[in-house]
Amino acid sequence: MSVKQVFDFHEGNASMKSVLGGKGAHLAEMTRAGLQVPPGFTISTAACLSYFQGNEGLSEELWQETQSALRRLEERKGQKLGNADNPLLVSVRSGSVTSMPGMMDTLLNLGLNDETVQGLARQTGNARFAYDCYRRLLQMFGEVVLGIEGFRFEKILSRVKSARGAETDQQLSADGLCELIEEYKGCIVARAGRPFPEDVHEQLRLAIQAVFSSWHNPRAKFYRQLNRIPDDQGTAVNIQSMVFGNLGSDCGTGVVFTRNPSTGEKDLYGEYLIDAQGEDVVAGSRTPQPVASLRNDMPDTYEELLRVAKRLENHYRDMQDIEFTVEKGKLYILQTRNGKRNAQAAVKIAVDLVKEGVIAKEEALQRIEASHLDQLLHRGIDESAVADVLATGLPASPGAASGRAAFDADTAARWSRDGIKVLLVRPETTPEDIHGVLVSEGVVTSRGGMTSHAAVVARGMGKPCVCGCESLDIDEERGQMTVGSRTVKEGDLLTIDGASGRVIVGEVPLREPKMTEQLSELLGWADAIRTLEVRANADNPDDARTGRQFGAQGIGLCRTEHMFFAPDRLPVVQRMIVADDDAERNKALAQLLPMQQSDFEGMFEQMNGLPVTIRLLDPPLHEFLPQEKELLKRLEELADTVEPGEAEKAEKKAIEATLRKVRSLAEVNPMLGLRGCRLGLVHPEIYDMQAEAIFRAASRCRERGISVELEIMVPLVGHVNELEILRNRIDHAARRVKEEEGGIDAAYKVGTMIEVPRAALTAGQIARHADFFSFGTNDLTQMTYGYSRDDAEGKFLTHYLDHKLLQVNPFQSLDTDGVGKLIEWGVSSGRAEKPELKTGICGEHGGDKESIFFCHRVGLNYVSCSPFRLPMARIAAAQAAIAYGRPQGDAAKSSSSVSSLPAV
Amino acid sequence: MSVKQVFDFHEGNASMKSVLGGKGAHLAEMTRAGLQVPPGFTISTAACLSYFQGNEGLSEELWQETQSALRRLEERKGQKLGNADNPLLVSVRSGSVTSMPGMMDTLLNLGLNDETVQGLARQTGNARFAYDCYRRLLQMFGEVVLGIEGFRFEKILSRVKSARGAETDQQLSADGLCELIEEYKGCIVARAGRPFPEDVHEQLRLAIQAVFSSWHNPRAKFYRQLNRIPDDQGTAVNIQSMVFGNLGSDCGTGVVFTRNPSTGEKDLYGEYLIDAQGEDVVAGSRTPQPVASLRNDMPDTYEELLRVAKRLENHYRDMQDIEFTVEKGKLYILQTRNGKRNAQAAVKIAVDLVKEGVIAKEEALQRIEASHLDQLLHRGIDESAVADVLATGLPASPGAASGRAAFDADTAARWSRDGIKVLLVRPETTPEDIHGVLVSEGVVTSRGGMTSHAAVVARGMGKPCVCGCESLDIDEERGQMTVGSRTVKEGDLLTIDGASGRVIVGEVPLREPKMTEQLSELLGWADAIRTLEVRANADNPDDARTGRQFGAQGIGLCRTEHMFFAPDRLPVVQRMIVADDDAERNKALAQLLPMQQSDFEGMFEQMNGLPVTIRLLDPPLHEFLPQEKELLKRLEELADTVEPGEAEKAEKKAIEATLRKVRSLAEVNPMLGLRGCRLGLVHPEIYDMQAEAIFRAASRCRERGISVELEIMVPLVGHVNELEILRNRIDHAARRVKEEEGGIDAAYKVGTMIEVPRAALTAGQIARHADFFSFGTNDLTQMTYGYSRDDAEGKFLTHYLDHKLLQVNPFQSLDTDGVGKLIEWGVSSGRAEKPELKTGICGEHGGDKESIFFCHRVGLNYVSCSPFRLPMARIAAAQAAIAYGRPQGDAAKSSSSVSSLPAV
Repeated sequence: MSVKQVFDFHEGNASMKSVLGGKGAHLAEMTRAGLQVPPGFTISTAACLSYFQGNEGLSEELWQETQSALRRLEERKGQKLGNADNPLLVSVRSGSVTSMPGMMDTLLNLGLNDETVQGLARQTGNARFAYDCYRRLLQMFGEVVLGIEGFRFEKILSRVKSARGAETDQQLSADGLCELIEEYKGCIVARAGRPFPEDVHEQLRLAIQAVFSSWHNPRAKFYRQLNRIPDDQGTAVNIQSMVFGNLGSDCGTGVVFTRNPSTGEKDLYGEYLIDAQGEDVVAGSRTPQPVASLRNDMPDTYEELLRVAKRLENHYRDMQDIEFTVEKGKLYILQTRNGKRNAQAAVKIAVDLVKEGVIAKEEALQRIEASHLDQLLHRGIDESAVADVLATGLPASPGAASGRAAFDADTAARWSRDGIKVLLVRPETTPEDIHGVLVSEGVVTSRGGMTSHAAVVARGMGKPCVCGCESLDIDEERGQMTVGSRTVKEGDLLTIDGASGRVIVGEVPLREPKMTEQLSELLGWADAIRTLEVRANADNPDDARTGRQFGAQGIGLCRTEHMFFAPDRLPVVQRMIVADDDAERNKALAQLLPMQQSDFEGMFEQMNGLPVTIRLLDPPLHEFLPQEKELLKRLEELADTVEPGEAEKAEKKAIEATLRKVRSLAEVNPMLGLRGCRLGLVHPEIYDMQAEAIFRAASRCRERGISVELEIMVPLVGHVNELEILRNRIDHAARRVKEEEGGIDAAYKVGTMIEVPRAALTAGQIARHADFFSFGTNDLTQMTYGYSRDDAEGKFLTHYLDHKLLQVNPFQSLDTDGVGKLIEWGVSSGRAEKPELKTGICGEHGGDKESIFFCHRVGLNYVSCSPFRLPMARIAAAQAAIAYGRPQGDAAKSSSSVSSLPAV
Repeated sequence: MSVKQVFDFHEGNASMKSVLGGKGAHLAEMTRAGLQVPPGFTISTAACLSYFQGNEGLSEELWQETQSALRRLEERKGQKLGNADNPLLVSVRSGSVTSMPGMMDTLLNLGLNDETVQGLARQTGNARFAYDCYRRLLQMFGEVVLGIEGFRFEKILSRVKSARGAETDQQLSADGLCELIEEYKGCIVARAGRPFPEDVHEQLRLAIQAVFSSWHNPRAKFYRQLNRIPDDQGTAVNIQSMVFGNLGSDCGTGVVFTRNPSTGEKDLYGEYLIDAQGEDVVAGSRTPQPVASLRNDMPDTYEELLRVAKRLENHYRDMQDIEFTVEKGKLYILQTRNGKRNAQAAVKIAVDLVKEGVIAKEEALQRIEASHLDQLLHRGIDESAVADVLATGLPASPGAASGRAAFDADTAARWSRDGIKVLLVRPETTPEDIHGVLVSEGVVTSRGGMTSHAAVVARGMGKPCVCGCESLDIDEERGQMTVGSRTVKEGDLLTIDGASGRVIVGEVPLREPKMTEQLSELLGWADAIRTLEVRANADNPDDARTGRQFGAQGIGLCRTEHMFFAPDRLPVVQRMIVADDDAERNKALAQLLPMQQSDFEGMFEQMNGLPVTIRLLDPPLHEFLPQEKELLKRLEELADTVEPGEAEKAEKKAIEATLRKVRSLAEVNPMLGLRGCRLGLVHPEIYDMQAEAIFRAASRCRERGISVELEIMVPLVGHVNELEILRNRIDHAARRVKEEEGGIDAAYKVGTMIEVPRAALTAGQIARHADFFSFGTNDLTQMTYGYSRDDAEGKFLTHYLDHKLLQVNPFQSLDTDGVGKLIEWGVSSGRAEKPELKTGICGEHGGDKESIFFCHRVGLNYVSCSPFRLPMARIAAAQAAIAYGRPQGDAAKSSSSVSSLPAV
């Protein structure tokens, strides 16, 4: 018995998303709910996958099922596909399981041919409308099914319009459209080598195949990769009877959100166009009206739309994104889905729904897309600054950004690769521009509304966007745009404010983002639920303060080397490294000590009462010295000096000494060389100085009544003896300072980064000398995979990701199969040895949702990430607690339950 | 109750080695066995360790126990320490648990002072003898206890001798010795700031302390490090009544082995000196007589010595190294221990003892020090070559070697660092020369016998040595030596043959080593016992043949890149890499294909019937290109050409292209970059070519009736998808070749190196696509530790080993705690997925005994190592089977028993 592959709308429901795709499931659900949905049927995703496996188009079986469904549809509508008197017209649309807006293909008005177009004209009494539908079908069919470039049709359209003196498409007469139809048909024969099929069933068959195939078009693939959507889901196909928003001024089409997707305000939000088809709204080729105007244009329809919106929102318990069409005054709902929203709206809507009693706090938290939360923390224009406003458009995606104007996606991509910050400026964007949007700081368009492609994509990516800024006259060819008398050339600096819609000439100071009230509330709920602590990575007192503001419960990683790179310190650091003898080296170290001490005092002041984890020096010493090339260049210059004075001679000597040191420190694989604790063991004087500076700072602060929760972290430990020796030295420094400082309480912890695979494998041994472990997942990933990040990303990682050899970049999201196994082993064997061992991660994964889920599951105590990612981390930690309950780590604390590596 | 710290000889036995040290335990055992051993007592190793913990010399408790033991000794001997009429004289010697010959200090004749020396003179009726004993004590005490340099005493001795016209020490009269005694005392006061202690108990106390302390002298530390002896064992101290071999011509002293330590012949072997003390034999300052002469000199003593030797060998069931002294015709046994022997002797003795029914085959195998076995495989002089023999000495350690003459250890060490092969040429060697011996190809001395320091050390290290080559007149100061009229200068090339004792001018062709009959027999026993297979690493047919001769059961690693480096191939490889387009690249690959194919055919021919594992290209491509510096230099030269012709222009263009490629291929951490299977995925055409060459070669060979057991190995896999994709390509190539070759059987296996930590962690996934795993322990160690071998050894690994932070170099002996855990996990999870999975290791650890033991324990199927290490590997594998029985791997094959990493 074969599996059912085609479902009438009333046969499905919302739970059948994996079979019917998102759109199909919602159409079914709405149909069952009795909403006015144009009838139709859905071909399942399974049928799509079978299609990919076969070689010869649609299977006979599927085609028969489709024909049956079509006959039922014809009966329901009282129309017949291809019937000259009463033709049924249908749309054929993709509908994937996970929403991929605009990424796949759609056909409208299918069922028209030379004969049925006449029937449609007769039925509607509107020949112009019928021809308009037909020419649209021809173009869509040509593009989607036959693969003809869109611009070929656009060129013909422009030519016919200008020959007939028509400025807009609307001004083209029925005759003009007939001419266009003939031209289009000619174009199809010429370009595709076959005529447009008059056989309407052949149209349908080819359209279904084309929609299936569009699953594999490049932009859809790119979108899936970007959004981590599996390639093997396939798409459903929805075949739905057409309703027409372009039959006259009592017709129209639009998109509404039940709440504002930018702000979250509880207010019908959206746009519509009178006398238009849906594609006109989505494509952004005409600028639509805000939905509020509909109250005046069509008061009854507006009221009905309000009622439907409310009903759908209640039904789905979430904000809805609804497509509607009004045909001759009658409202049809074409689609509904949970509306995309930016972070601010997501937060407000979630919080409001809780307050309205619609959902629980846990559900509100689960609805927040953690990866979008940092949008809220986007910067805005500093209002006190003078802004030279060039133009104002629609505030399509919040946040402000500056960059150099690029007028096409390829230029944007190229510049971005060269490290230039770019703003993408386009008349409108299409899915083909997506790589340009991705690399740009923000997007500006001169056409299209709040739901245009540019707006939707930019909001999804959390990038600022200004849309429909119609006063911009963009000349792509000349690479410039004019606004009245002013000209902006490609490469000129612009600033945009996606919150106000302003486009500003030059670079404007930006203000730092602030918490919204709703976010604070939501974060409060998250804090009450999560079990994972969050800490900030902060290398200076300012970052520490920011971290604290964003909810850090401590500093998880303070990289002392960042203090070494400060311009006033670097020369001293270099003197220390190049020093010929101990005396000289100690002199430089003595100079560094008070500098480091004051850094640490600043950190302790900010974090009063909260733990501060200070990592001792980590990078190889050569990172602090100039490049060999630079030194050689300067030596050449000095050699060219005709009569060198004493100063030149001294400089030459100094450079030569540095050069010798640079060469002696050079390494084949610096990543795996003399750095981290290895440095601390071979050159103990450096860590001794750092330990002393830390303890003196702690002592000073404690004297002043500041509560210092000090944690000293030794990097790159791979063998227990490394930590044991260094811990002894640190303890020694602590005792010495305590004595000298008159016995002020000197409590501290000593722990280590677990970032070398061997450290994780021997964590039980290492735990004996560690009060805490912090998994350094950046280096741990590098060594576990054997990938040098510096080399991999350019040389093969991109290839691996492009070819789906790796599903995700392991430097972005933690590899739970490999690196994760080491972390689990490290945590469980460390705790078996020392139940009170504190564990956390620091590194980029600390701000990644999936990675935070993993950290929760293995029972880490905390994650540490950059200050701006903290709200995201707090939400993700709460989501993890909701999804998984209390971590297994609690169990792992008892040694009997620890799973084990094999014993020899 | 305090622990007993001092043991009379008759209180101990051989099993108390850890308490009494090796020497003490054997003295006790011999005493119990009723042999004529001068009585004495032993201070335990525990006392030594307590001494190191205290701050103030010997504890009162230990001193009291020592005094009691001394009183018992005095009673037994009827003498008294310090008694002027009947003085007891004692030796004070170190005695560590593990033998460390010559590494620590010894004092003889202790108990002499200005008063007792007269008593000794009276008692023996030999004033000259008494004074000679006294001056020896003064010198030893000065050096060992008071730290005065030996040469200060030697200088005084020379001065007194020449003033009195004495050529040898023996020619010095009693008067002369008295003068010497006074001079020595003066030297002691002047250099040590204190007089020689007349108080004999003070002598004893200081001597015990000095022997304890000598545990920490630099040469002892170095020896322990070299031989992996723990630092915390400490040494026992043996205090034994003196007997004198230097009381006249009916006295003597010597060392015998119960069998020949170089050849293993069952014949008393050794040396003695008439009228001498033991140190004269060991130090090599007089050239002793072979023990056979004793039959004439002292027939009764010789017969007794034969009887004692036989008794001791039977008692200990092993060849013994016996020190004896004859005092006034009476034989005393001072020491016995299992004799050090070279590999050839070890093998012969072990085999002979089995045949004599003394030990079982298993015990014979366990007695072989696997790490010395490769001595047997040392090369010898090609007898057909003309050798310009300069001189002939004693054949002290077998094997032949060529190198440049260095006349001191420091020079040898310096040259060796510069990559120069060195022969160390010394009048005699002392423990201070050990670093020079270590780096030399071989050692020559002009003084000393077969048991001299140089001979013992060289045999231990498996280096050729010629000793006592008295015709060599070595002038260290002028850096040359003369033999008659011929002069050899420092840096001149010499060849030595340790088997014949010849020293030859210039470099002489050497012949390859052969198996001895006994070794073949022993290896046969080993093969019958071991469960681990052994394979050879071989990159060409010659190595494959050698491997097969040494018992390889297959090739475990054939590195195809070594074929790429051949001079006729490198230019083609470079063209392939630099190629601008596919056509050019494919042209170069097409040229390489037949070359590789013929390489593989050669391998298959040699290994007919045995498996051959071929690893696809591994190193990064830049390794095949010239260095950037070289290219720039050549470009500069070309730029200086005044009128460049077409050739120069073409070369410039080619170099510029290469330079671009070199730069684009440059990596920050090449170890973790684009190499191994990453290369095979990014540039699939290279592996495609290799796979085709392999299959064509296999097909050709099979056509000729050769049995090809083909295993293709993919390097550097870290993710299952890498292997899956490449395996598909290999399968594809196999099918294609099979079709083209007319369907000749194309059986093959595909497996992978497990050398990236992630591969071991995800071995269960990877096993799905692998027929075998070969653990690449070199890279696995690098990545698990995070050590770049290129950088670590120079920059911090030496520091780690020197400071005992690491006990052993993990690149020499497998780190079982960390890397080993990954291997265990890899094996067990791989087999859980695929029970028939074959596992092995290739890499330097494959020839290391401890590592082979580990491989056996975790149940690997085979180890693969360089051909010359195969006999060692076979023995070690048998030892492992004897020590551990059948591997747990058999159990690991059933998935239920697999221990597991923690599951999330």
